Amino acid sequence: METIDLRSDTVTQPSAAMRQAMAEAAVGDDVYGEDPTVNQLQQRAAELFGQEAALLVTSGTQGNLVAMLTHAPRGSEVILGDKSHIFLYEQGGIAALGGIMPHTITVQQDGTLRLDDIEAAVRGDNVHFPRTRVIALENTQGTVGGVPLSPDYVARVVHFAHARGLKVHIDGARIFNAAAHYGVTPAALMAGADSLTFCLSKGLGAPVGSVLVGSRQFIDEARRMRKLLGGGMRQAGILAAAGLTALESMPQRLQQDHDNAAYFAARLAEIPQLRLLSCHTNFVFFALEESVALSAEEFSARLQRSNILLQPYHGAARRFRAVFHCWIDQTRVDQVVAAMQNVLA
Amino acid sequence: METIDLRSDTVTQPSAAMRQAMAEAAVGDDVYGEDPTVNQLQQRAAELFGQEAALLVTSGTQGNLVAMLTHAPRGSEVILGDKSHIFLYEQGGIAALGGIMPHTITVQQDGTLRLDDIEAAVRGDNVHFPRTRVIALENTQGTVGGVPLSPDYVARVVHFAHARGLKVHIDGARIFNAAAHYGVTPAALMAGADSLTFCLSKGLGAPVGSVLVGSRQFIDEARRMRKLLGGGMRQAGILAAAGLTALESMPQRLQQDHDNAAYFAARLAEIPQLRLLSCHTNFVFFALEESVALSAEEFSARLQRSNILLQPYHGAARRFRAVFHCWIDQTRVDQVVAAMQNVLA
Amino acid sequence: METIDLRSDTVTQPSAAMRQAMAEAAVGDDVYGEDPTVNQLQQRAAELFGQEAALLVTSGTQGNLVAMLTHAPRGSEVILGDKSHIFLYEQGGIAALGGIMPHTITVQQDGTLRLDDIEAAVRGDNVHFPRTRVIALENTQGTVGGVPLSPDYVARVVHFAHARGLKVHIDGARIFNAAAHYGVTPAALMAGADSLTFCLSKGLGAPVGSVLVGSRQFIDEARRMRKLLGGGMRQAGILAAAGLTALESMPQRLQQDHDNAAYFAARLAEIPQLRLLSCHTNFVFFALEESVALSAEEFSARLQRSNILLQPYHGAARRFRAVFHCWIDQTRVDQVVAAMQNVLA
Amino acid sequence: METIDLRSDTVTQPSAAMRQAMAEAAVGDDVYGEDPTVNQLQQRAAELFGQEAALLVTSGTQGNLVAMLTHAPRGSEVILGDKSHIFLYEQGGIAALGGIMPHTITVQQDGTLRLDDIEAAVRGDNVHFPRTRVIALENTQGTVGGVPLSPDYVARVVHFAHARGLKVHIDGARIFNAAAHYGVTPAALMAGADSLTFCLSKGLGAPVGSVLVGSRQFIDEARRMRKLLGGGMRQAGILAAAGLTALESMPQRLQQDHDNAAYFAARLAEIPQLRLLSCHTNFVFFALEESVALSAEEFSARLQRSNILLQPYHGAARRFRAVFHCWIDQTRVDQVVAAMQNVLA
Repeated sequence: METIDLRSDTVTQPSAAMRQAMAEAAVGDDVYGEDPTVNQLQQRAAELFGQEAALLVTSGTQGNLVAMLTHAPRGSEVILGDKSHIFLYEQGGIAALGGIMPHTITVQQDGTLRLDDIEAAVRGDNVHFPRTRVIALENTQGTVGGVPLSPDYVARVVHFAHARGLKVHIDGARIFNAAAHYGVTPAALMAGADSLTFCLSKGLGAPVGSVLVGSRQFIDEARRMRKLLGGGMRQAGILAAAGLTALESMPQRLQQDHDNAAYFAARLAEIPQLRLLSCHTNFVFFALEESVALSAEEFSARLQRSNILLQPYHGAARRFRAVFHCWIDQTRVDQVVAAMQNVLA
Repeated sequence: METIDLRSDTVTQPSAAMRQAMAEAAVGDDVYGEDPTVNQLQQRAAELFGQEAALLVTSGTQGNLVAMLTHAPRGSEVILGDKSHIFLYEQGGIAALGGIMPHTITVQQDGTLRLDDIEAAVRGDNVHFPRTRVIALENTQGTVGGVPLSPDYVARVVHFAHARGLKVHIDGARIFNAAAHYGVTPAALMAGADSLTFCLSKGLGAPVGSVLVGSRQFIDEARRMRKLLGGGMRQAGILAAAGLTALESMPQRLQQDHDNAAYFAARLAEIPQLRLLSCHTNFVFFALEESVALSAEEFSARLQRSNILLQPYHGAARRFRAVFHCWIDQTRVDQVVAAMQNVLA
Repeated sequence: METIDLRSDTVTQPSAAMRQAMAEAAVGDDVYGEDPTVNQLQQRAAELFGQEAALLVTSGTQGNLVAMLTHAPRGSEVILGDKSHIFLYEQGGIAALGGIMPHTITVQQDGTLRLDDIEAAVRGDNVHFPRTRVIALENTQGTVGGVPLSPDYVARVVHFAHARGLKVHIDGARIFNAAAHYGVTPAALMAGADSLTFCLSKGLGAPVGSVLVGSRQFIDEARRMRKLLGGGMRQAGILAAAGLTALESMPQRLQQDHDNAAYFAARLAEIPQLRLLSCHTNFVFFALEESVALSAEEFSARLQRSNILLQPYHGAARRFRAVFHCWIDQTRVDQVVAAMQNVLA
Repeated sequence: METIDLRSDTVTQPSAAMRQAMAEAAVGDDVYGEDPTVNQLQQRAAELFGQEAALLVTSGTQGNLVAMLTHAPRGSEVILGDKSHIFLYEQGGIAALGGIMPHTITVQQDGTLRLDDIEAAVRGDNVHFPRTRVIALENTQGTVGGVPLSPDYVARVVHFAHARGLKVHIDGARIFNAAAHYGVTPAALMAGADSLTFCLSKGLGAPVGSVLVGSRQFIDEARRMRKLLGGGMRQAGILAAAGLTALESMPQRLQQDHDNAAYFAARLAEIPQLRLLSCHTNFVFFALEESVALSAEEFSARLQRSNILLQPYHGAARRFRAVFHCWIDQTRVDQVVAAMQNVLA
């Protein structure tokens, strides 16, 4: 039996079409701006988000870091969620490398930052304070359950920010999941923000790469920042080719992942030892009831014997996150549920 | 009538004894370690806090920054209060200059950080995380009302930290106020922490200077960091002389400031238009009742006509902070209360 | 007529074998360490250089930056050549992001740094000085003509460094060209150094990627630094597959590039309007004689009409650098020489 | 016999007039901008240099660092001398804290940087390069013998810089010595430069402090940078009072120091075991002849028995630097010469 990997949507393998596209990609030296496939991907990404320009980077982390380095000088401050990926899972790069202060505020259960909290965090003009420069949102918001932010909410934050001369960056690693959820275009979720990073891997299934979008001027400077990080690549058209294939074929199928997540969440009701915590887009969080004798690690280990990968969610006792993606269809959901029932029987 | 300045205890003027001490100070080139008065001050400070060594710096901000640069390498993280001076009022120096991530947790109304919150903030060993290196406390905690931390609480945090290989730094700008409050020695408030900064200005009344204390090894490295910041001074014995005088004569009189603060707080009950918010050590916070037609700025401006300086507390509508120090005696408190009654009549 | 691109060996296109390898690569999520092809490449690279471990990065610049961030803490200093790639062409990343001081010394015409100059640059233990931590060599040394450093020279620098507690990093972007020149293994050119970056692109012809090699402990920390830069990739086995193919097939053919460079250099003697400046490994530098009416830019533009790309070497009036690689065979050299004669006739 | 300290002019003790001025200084809280003596000093300094504004800092190192942080963003580059104080003796602060690349060029024997060398170091607009922002000069240039730069030379560099959009900063720790040498005002030596740091200690004899001068806009931002470094002081008028006294009384007597240096240099001819190397402004460099059996350290130690402090110049075997200042008169020069003859007899 093949492995069913629910740990993350980052584990997706490239499709046959992507592999073929990579093998046949027209490439050139992208440091000279001469890679036609990279240029095509960047143009396509800019169009999709209604932006002037785009930049291929190697990871979502790099896209976020490049955006912050471009928006925010040494000694400035970014307002962001206390459960945001940038604050929690990017090794503190904005501070470590960029000398940028993170000013965290509470991420609400619906993934939003409250405008009142943002307002309270904006610094006045005072020699004691760093200068606030950026508000960073995350859509979908992974750590509170993959909950999507609405175009309307994003627009309100952008309006607030621009009225104060602040920039808005969106960590849109899974922005296409949000678009599928709301049935809107990616451009609609940009909602006037100044920059956005999205991932070609994860739900879109490409092997490597993320894309940063924004104005021409922003991207020109971001290209310098990418080079600074050593993120400039030579014949990157290989990766861009898979990315282009991903952009063409994958966004329209993400609703299936959401449906599978919902189906899985519904079927959890059949397993009294498990308690559903949340189900948003392609993320399901659930907990092992206290009454179960198994530890979370044992539960995980036993599932692995059935080739099912599902790990305790880090930091949270007896909690699990199941992430749905193109390699998980309904049959596999059924296999997972059956295996869980078996382990808990 | 002389000005009564309640804005902060940083406005204190040097006493006649301090001025004389400065005029007569034996000095040398401290960059060569040859200033006898600096050396004497540093030795005295180390003794008072039960530490091996001490270092004169130009400000509390510099003391905290030097401590963080010494304890925490590029890319590490410090856990500190969301209302701490380091996070709020030091321009983000630890991130801007040191590449150190601040990880803020809620400061409780009693000035403490909850151990559970600290524990949740400590990072595990994972490529996604910065490395936690320091827990920073503040005693007294200015922004929540000048509330002092007890030796017992500090010792619990130190025990927690050392069990995890973490350092504890104390921003003790007003540590002598905490010592006066608890009736303990400064050393008792060190409680095993790895470093502490205290100010010779503020309640102690010296014109310029703070002192960082810790182990010999820590201070040796801290001296390098002070030099890096351009904080090395030549014949600094001038300032150290006032600091020595301050250390001799001022700590034992701080209880008077606390008494005057309490007296002022008590007398606020006579003014129905004002509401007492808190009174701890030498800080009194109070608010202008909504029913009063005057704005906070107008109230402040009218008091100024009577040579009383008292400003709205920044960020908080209609709130004021009155800080008591050696230039405010009970007669002046009476004058302030009378002037307030007059303005609000 | 197909384009003959002599601007750099970075323009090389992946071979058919590399394209096939990429299309068929077994991949996994490398952030979890689960990409078998990445692991295989890293193991192979470590073996080739006689090191414990290796790390795939996206560029030579990233490899060098990761190495510096790993070896050198904030406020330390690296001694390196004033014509080194790290100092000249990496946007100052070591200072900008790492807070590391570059201490440049003169690169000699044979690509070496003089040991006397290195010795004079090593800082003593003094509060005024940053701490010297690393000596960085470059092999081959691009900006002085692609000249290779000998194993014996490198060993002398390493011996000098280790006797003083310093690390040695080698920017070996073209280390295989040096190995081909001296007829030694890559491991022989490591010569005891602590880390080395080499490129899978350039002479080896892979589309994207460089590899950093060193001890297990060094690479474990370097992996953190790569993540910090956003250099962590997901299914990077696609790129690693091309890299493995490159490592198998390309090193042994680099001597052909050197032979073609020498052949081109020899044939320059037939063109009196051009003056040979140097010929080392796969680099030929030459100048347009003053007597020629054409500007360097015009000369370049006219060659381009014959589909020959050869640009004035930046910073140097009327100088050109021709770089030889797997897409330039002797026939093409003849075409280039003929075209030059034609342009200058 | 009193100690004769020729190690540096940083060892100068404050005069009686300075001590009195400090004891009587009117002071206030300079963080609020309320210290009248600080304000007076800053106004006086600005006038002297023909600038709009000035800022008191604690050291020349801090003045230079504040200037660089103000002029140059993260990732930019400063062109400066390879023997400049900023590069050699300030712990690499511009890189360590500011992420600013030092681009060193050779300091000539006359203390200048060649315009050709500066031009070659200015970076073009290219993604591989940091952005050049500042040219830093040093006047007098300590490490090549205290040689002064002429107003004409400085003006040429400023003209060159401004034509390219670059700023010029002058490390004028001993600018008053240069002014005395050329018989010009300090303002004449500013020569259009954008910022300058001078020291109140050293030749001017104040115990602590340096001043940074420039435009109003520059100083406003510099004040933020000073705060960032923890260089903000409270009742700094104490130090400013000595600084004001120094500015009034000391510049006009610096020629005496130069005369004493010249007298000492001339008298070295009487001691065949010593070789004069250079004599500029208040610096004399000389060497112990190889024929002398004593080591430099022994020579130094024996002089110390006669209470004469004179240390081997660091980095240079058998060389000494004698620095002349207000505590060394001609009688003491004679004592030193006699003591040297005695030691070498």
